[in-house]
Amino acid sequence: MTHGKGRGHGPSLRELLRVPAGGRVRLGTYDPSATPAGPPDKAAGRAAAAELAEPLAGLQERLYAAATAGDRRRLLLVLQGMDTSGKGGTVKHAAAPFNPAGCRIRAFKAPTPEEREHPFLWRVEKALPRPGEIGIFDRSHYEDVLVARVHALVPRDTLERRYGEINAFERSLAEDGVTLVKVFLHIGFEEQRERLLRRLDRPDKRWKFDPGDIEERALWPAYQEAYERVLERCSTDAAPWYLVPADHKWYRDWAVGRLLLEHLEEMDPRYPPATFDVGACRARLIAG
Amino acid sequence: MTHGKGRGHGPSLRELLRVPAGGRVRLGTYDPSATPAGPPDKAAGRAAAAELAEPLAGLQERLYAAATAGDRRRLLLVLQGMDTSGKGGTVKHAAAPFNPAGCRIRAFKAPTPEEREHPFLWRVEKALPRPGEIGIFDRSHYEDVLVARVHALVPRDTLERRYGEINAFERSLAEDGVTLVKVFLHIGFEEQRERLLRRLDRPDKRWKFDPGDIEERALWPAYQEAYERVLERCSTDAAPWYLVPADHKWYRDWAVGRLLLEHLEEMDPRYPPATFDVGACRARLIAG
Repeated sequence: MTHGKGRGHGPSLRELLRVPAGGRVRLGTYDPSATPAGPPDKAAGRAAAAELAEPLAGLQERLYAAATAGDRRRLLLVLQGMDTSGKGGTVKHAAAPFNPAGCRIRAFKAPTPEEREHPFLWRVEKALPRPGEIGIFDRSHYEDVLVARVHALVPRDTLERRYGEINAFERSLAEDGVTLVKVFLHIGFEEQRERLLRRLDRPDKRWKFDPGDIEERALWPAYQEAYERVLERCSTDAAPWYLVPADHKWYRDWAVGRLLLEHLEEMDPRYPPATFDVGACRARLIAG
Repeated sequence: MTHGKGRGHGPSLRELLRVPAGGRVRLGTYDPSATPAGPPDKAAGRAAAAELAEPLAGLQERLYAAATAGDRRRLLLVLQGMDTSGKGGTVKHAAAPFNPAGCRIRAFKAPTPEEREHPFLWRVEKALPRPGEIGIFDRSHYEDVLVARVHALVPRDTLERRYGEINAFERSLAEDGVTLVKVFLHIGFEEQRERLLRRLDRPDKRWKFDPGDIEERALWPAYQEAYERVLERCSTDAAPWYLVPADHKWYRDWAVGRLLLEHLEEMDPRYPPATFDVGACRARLIAG
């Protein structure tokens, strides 16, 4: 069974959503409610996303199996986006098709005192997927050029240096067998207001609300600008960024699943061949 | 909505499958193909297991939410059993209803050189669920009184001491808010043969086969005896063992799901109340 390109899936979503390396990025020119190359509506989108589950599960099992024979490859999904952009929901949907034992999921919060004592990439390195695993980051090392930029937590030249450090770090990961899928979940200012209000209004969602979110929301333009710099400086050939319009949750979930599928199909992991005498083992089992 | 005992679920599976503290255990007296208190057949079992998903997901979200307000409680499912007893499959099914971001899953293999330099509980302590999380162990610290006993990896008095260390460790976990659900997946000798043969015969399962499994199978009686000692010495009030007949995968998955549900219902986690002025936040969001 081939999972290569000529399978009739149509044009790749990767090419469509990929942020070109070295280009200028203006988030205002991207409609957060767009559904490029997507199914026509929510019902079709949910159905299309459900159809991705089986091939994704199969590819994960092969990736995991290959690692038992020394294949070092793994995949790391990095999710970034404004508050309420749906990072948590995307983790849940993206991980759903996979065997959880082969997933390494990590949500990065404000650094702990211990984490602050180390270089900013330290906590990220500890959370990386092992060979054969699917890693998912809800926020990441990019917070150190996002919140750090908006709140001027470090001097400007430190910030500038970090973009290069991130690119070098990600290149080294790619060389070690990590396929990076970096996704920026792009939502609109009004959509965020709606989502924050919904958290306030539903007693079972209120625990997700932090009054500090309102202060962060006031910094919306500064965050958008910080994201533009990230997308311009850190969408590299080794580790490109994908811009996923995320006002529609069904589109977001389908698109992220589809991006994962395209990357895993390209990786094309294989079950390892038996390194033992199958017939002899069979005979011993039947005898013993 | 109450999740307490009087909900009409019938007698608790916990009481039925629990290994009494301090009693004598003879595994030969337990039928691995039994389905105590279970649905009548596979179709009914799969349907009953599917019905557990929604309440389990709801309880996990409340557990996670409660932790954001300081509740330290969490649940740890410990899975033990002979090779092919279905630990991996049980992890997959047990975790399926939960948001994977709130699960901490760990499979313990033979200790690494680094792990061997530490006391046997060290690697286990590092893998424990954080408050609000569901932890799942595929194998555990019990390997250090199972494989260690069967292969005489440590002196007998070290082994004897470890039962007590494990009980003290688990008591301290329980006191810190960890609900332990320790499950022994009980399969029969013939069932293991069938499952090993299936791994050999299916090219997509062969990577799970290790010829060393045949040598371990030859030690079946010694392993059964080692498990009997574990169940006798380490089924305590703070952390009882549950013996789940596991020849039928559908029964095993239903029973483990049901055990998780009963424990989570007893924990009865609650969404935390708002600690901020909801009306004021609402007004600021609408204005800003």
